[in-house]
Amino acid sequence: MSQPARKFDAAFAQAFETLLRWRRDVRHFAPQAVAEQDMADLLALAALAPSVGNAQPWRFVRVRTPALREALAAHVDDQNALAARGYADQARHDAYRALKLHGLREAPEILAVFCDEQARAGHRLGIATMPEMLRYSCVAAIQTLWLAARIRGIGLGWVSILDPQVVTAMLDVPPRWSLIALLCIGYPDQPSETPELEQRGWQSREPLADRLFER
Amino acid sequence: MSQPARKFDAAFAQAFETLLRWRRDVRHFAPQAVAEQDMADLLALAALAPSVGNAQPWRFVRVRTPALREALAAHVDDQNALAARGYADQARHDAYRALKLHGLREAPEILAVFCDEQARAGHRLGIATMPEMLRYSCVAAIQTLWLAARIRGIGLGWVSILDPQVVTAMLDVPPRWSLIALLCIGYPDQPSETPELEQRGWQSREPLADRLFER
Repeated sequence: MSQPARKFDAAFAQAFETLLRWRRDVRHFAPQAVAEQDMADLLALAALAPSVGNAQPWRFVRVRTPALREALAAHVDDQNALAARGYADQARHDAYRALKLHGLREAPEILAVFCDEQARAGHRLGIATMPEMLRYSCVAAIQTLWLAARIRGIGLGWVSILDPQVVTAMLDVPPRWSLIALLCIGYPDQPSETPELEQRGWQSREPLADRLFER
Repeated sequence: MSQPARKFDAAFAQAFETLLRWRRDVRHFAPQAVAEQDMADLLALAALAPSVGNAQPWRFVRVRTPALREALAAHVDDQNALAARGYADQARHDAYRALKLHGLREAPEILAVFCDEQARAGHRLGIATMPEMLRYSCVAAIQTLWLAARIRGIGLGWVSILDPQVVTAMLDVPPRWSLIALLCIGYPDQPSETPELEQRGWQSREPLADRLFER
């Protein structure tokens, strides 16, 4: 069942590296809508991600109801205020409060990604001892969608300053689904190769050598 | 701080889709070694993945000791036999036992990926209510590495049929690190565009429409 493997050239490898360097977590969105075909393409590409046992446990929920979007934004604002209180150091607290951490009110598209913890597909292969592999499969789909979006000039922001149980209840999904991500999707208002958290002095890239080990 | 955004053309978008379609979970490896420069490049590209608060919580451990590799393979074989007992249906059990689920003895490179659950970088931004975001950041790095490897003709197999605590102890890492993945890396022996689990009748792709919802 093997086939001649598809090859990729050095120019593609170089452009892929550029793509990785230009993938950003976006919180500032332009008002321009995302075309329906682009949304369909992004979701189809995300579904090409690896999944444990080929379980395809991702469940994508597009938020189309304005009142629901506002409720989500208000919840994240509340959680953000709570998180700010966790910074005892005044300078760090002030830096935190100065950050814009979500574009839930401006992004043209809001997408919630859930994991079906009891996915039938895959027949539970590979999850006997690591059930989190189902959730990890959903994360691989999100990173895939993120890169596919950036190729099209579309930005994505991953919002995690929220109570997953509250958001799950708001979105009225089956109880066996767990929330992986709340995503803002749209055209970036301030494109940059430099992460916003680095621009604002929160956290820069650190040397990879500190993260490599041998045994 | 915004810059003219880097654009990607339609040919790149098409090649990226081909890349996603040709990314496979590989369990059959050719003996050919992976060049040291390729390993360095793959790890550097993985580190361009998104991470919560820019925490870069990934920790990569290359397994270079033959006895350690064999101990890992033996552990996975044991866990695999245990998992097989979970299939009460005889046909499904037999199908499971017929699958090759890891290349730990043959793959030229074994890479364990851990998450530092107490990463200093990132200053705990975005993890007050979703501490799993640190682990999800590591998964995004793995999917990035996976795609970068495939561009170079290098395959990756993610092994999850293992007890994470046992493997963590074997690899003698700090207690605050949690195991995300044990990866086999090398040149595929049987390249194919079709997932091995689909070729062998375990699980095929299902319609995306069943996984899309609106609220």
